[in-house]
Amino acid sequence: MVYLTRVEHFNAAHKLQNTGWTDEQNVAVFGKCANANWHGHNYELHVTVKGEPNPDTGFVFNAKELGKLIKDIIVEQVDHRNLNLDVPFMKGKFTSAENLIMGIWDELKPHVEKNGAQLHKMKLNETPNIYVEYYG
Amino acid sequence: MVYLTRVEHFNAAHKLQNTGWTDEQNVAVFGKCANANWHGHNYELHVTVKGEPNPDTGFVFNAKELGKLIKDIIVEQVDHRNLNLDVPFMKGKFTSAENLIMGIWDELKPHVEKNGAQLHKMKLNETPNIYVEYYG
Amino acid sequence: MVYLTRVEHFNAAHKLQNTGWTDEQNVAVFGKCANANWHGHNYELHVTVKGEPNPDTGFVFNAKELGKLIKDIIVEQVDHRNLNLDVPFMKGKFTSAENLIMGIWDELKPHVEKNGAQLHKMKLNETPNIYVEYYG
Amino acid sequence: MVYLTRVEHFNAAHKLQNTGWTDEQNVAVFGKCANANWHGHNYELHVTVKGEPNPDTGFVFNAKELGKLIKDIIVEQVDHRNLNLDVPFMKGKFTSAENLIMGIWDELKPHVEKNGAQLHKMKLNETPNIYVEYYG
Amino acid sequence: MVYLTRVEHFNAAHKLQNTGWTDEQNVAVFGKCANANWHGHNYELHVTVKGEPNPDTGFVFNAKELGKLIKDIIVEQVDHRNLNLDVPFMKGKFTSAENLIMGIWDELKPHVEKNGAQLHKMKLNETPNIYVEYYG
Amino acid sequence: MVYLTRVEHFNAAHKLQNTGWTDEQNVAVFGKCANANWHGHNYELHVTVKGEPNPDTGFVFNAKELGKLIKDIIVEQVDHRNLNLDVPFMKGKFTSAENLIMGIWDELKPHVEKNGAQLHKMKLNETPNIYVEYYG
Repeated sequence: MVYLTRVEHFNAAHKLQNTGWTDEQNVAVFGKCANANWHGHNYELHVTVKGEPNPDTGFVFNAKELGKLIKDIIVEQVDHRNLNLDVPFMKGKFTSAENLIMGIWDELKPHVEKNGAQLHKMKLNETPNIYVEYYG
Repeated sequence: MVYLTRVEHFNAAHKLQNTGWTDEQNVAVFGKCANANWHGHNYELHVTVKGEPNPDTGFVFNAKELGKLIKDIIVEQVDHRNLNLDVPFMKGKFTSAENLIMGIWDELKPHVEKNGAQLHKMKLNETPNIYVEYYG
Repeated sequence: MVYLTRVEHFNAAHKLQNTGWTDEQNVAVFGKCANANWHGHNYELHVTVKGEPNPDTGFVFNAKELGKLIKDIIVEQVDHRNLNLDVPFMKGKFTSAENLIMGIWDELKPHVEKNGAQLHKMKLNETPNIYVEYYG
Repeated sequence: MVYLTRVEHFNAAHKLQNTGWTDEQNVAVFGKCANANWHGHNYELHVTVKGEPNPDTGFVFNAKELGKLIKDIIVEQVDHRNLNLDVPFMKGKFTSAENLIMGIWDELKPHVEKNGAQLHKMKLNETPNIYVEYYG
Repeated sequence: MVYLTRVEHFNAAHKLQNTGWTDEQNVAVFGKCANANWHGHNYELHVTVKGEPNPDTGFVFNAKELGKLIKDIIVEQVDHRNLNLDVPFMKGKFTSAENLIMGIWDELKPHVEKNGAQLHKMKLNETPNIYVEYYG
Repeated sequence: MVYLTRVEHFNAAHKLQNTGWTDEQNVAVFGKCANANWHGHNYELHVTVKGEPNPDTGFVFNAKELGKLIKDIIVEQVDHRNLNLDVPFMKGKFTSAENLIMGIWDELKPHVEKNGAQLHKMKLNETPNIYVEYYG
């Protein structure tokens, strides 16, 4: 079993806000991330598939095709977007890195599997110093 | 003459839009950066001062104090903010990296000089693959 | 289950020395790391907690609070210190990266758990090319 | 149990080509990677061993010796080489990152074990955005 | 005057060889870089243009268009190629990083100027630890 | 004129202390950097030479030889050392990054020139966020 990872990037705006809370509660929990006028990040997304290398190619999966899949299915929806307002799969969710990686997982998984690969793991950097990992 | 650089970071939302243009013109020039609902970046700011090392300290300038100055004067104003809406020194300007670095320069320069340092250069990364540099 | 990681940094001096050995034995095993007058590193510490996102926040744990915890409990004790001389939890231990990550784990774990998070993993870079990982 | 990783680098040429296929088939699957005249990469190899720290040294394994082992056994064979033509352990294999990491694993494992360490994992970056991982 | 830089990447094979020299002379000067069967690198190219920000856009030059120009004119010619065999503008030249950056400069300059920008500087990383810079 | 840079690394201990000052004065100016028991860093040194490429090699200077020179003359003296106690060319100086880069410059310059290269610039990273540059 070999694990192959492809990294893609996107830039997006968001804010962290519990609309059922007062402004004071939001600032107490989310701090500057609750700024009403949004802030944003350069996100870095790692997508890992696993399998046995194909004897005809030496590939677990074609890394170029994996990149195209991530760009078509995910980056197209989130890059230069507002995660709270513009992204169908995040509608009604807090746009924490945790929820975002779970949303991306659910969105990408069927497309990866339809192409014959087994999705193993995702890693999402919100900043160089904060990242989340998810295995489904 | 030795050049000392301190790097600080901030995360902000913005959009690129010429309000005197139609939506079509904005998209033609700014592409996805014109998204009405904003997008954002992890910005990385390098501030370079120059001078002769002080014989009592070996410092051109105290790097910790330079960091504090950048945080107090700049990061406080732009971190987790909307560059178009929340930042006084960017009011009425396009929030391109070019204009942003010029605005940061004008904002920080008097504070650096008041502390006895000579501002030499700034570098601002909008993404790992796009950056601007400015010498005043 | 989502895994959230926060990265913090510290700069410290240390040396590798078995005081029960001769200088020759120490140099044979530890090489330049045995230099009696110390050397040092910029350490990079990754702390990973795991859990289900909280439905009120979307967070497994508040990344800002995790950063504050690491800084208060660990960085405060080791940053700009001598790991062999100044750090209570390393007293009497070789200051290898292996022992250091185990010491940091034991020191931080109760504080993370007291705050309701589940400590999953730590990673510690001694240099860009040497790192250790620990799961307790 | 602590995991210790040492990173080493090498630069090599290769191409991806199924010699049982037509040129059209090769380009369809491998794209530019099938260029007959080769292309190349700066590879980054992470080798992870695991164990209990030795009470006499605090080491799971001596990181310097691990580096020497990787350089002697692997880098010596692949650095500034053509992976398809010059490397005995890749003879007759597609030089995909997947096959390369499996080849490196088989080549290095007996030497690591002979030196008393337990090989746990390898990671190989072909580019900053494509990497493979292998656990044997 | 503001300086705007765009970074692009390409992967290529090459070798360093003076065909007027014996093999011994080539190895004495070029070492492993003279390997007859080629080696390769992940090159990183920084292209810097300079100017006054345009009052209608805030741009010195459109970074997206600069990226497209670099990809169309340079990356298309060198990515996944053999610098000695496949690249017209390097024909008959040693493929040192020095000659490569000078060749890229001459190739890209007229296209940048035709698009109204002033080429200021290029930087080319052959490895993370070796890079060249050129101002024309 | 082309500029060629070679990057090398070293790990060292130091402290910042004006022995003519009280402890209070030292802490007021140098903060944690004045810790009597030392701290340390992973230093990253960039050495830039300039010239016309040699028509027989395409090189401004042989990057491998430049690396060897930096290792023999500088890294050998400072790696895994105490900059205040062990390094002859820093004797009696504050071991600020500013003084260190000036000391390295004076130490390396004659050796670079003796080998026929023109030293242009040095850059020294003390941490990823603090660096100094020097042109002699």
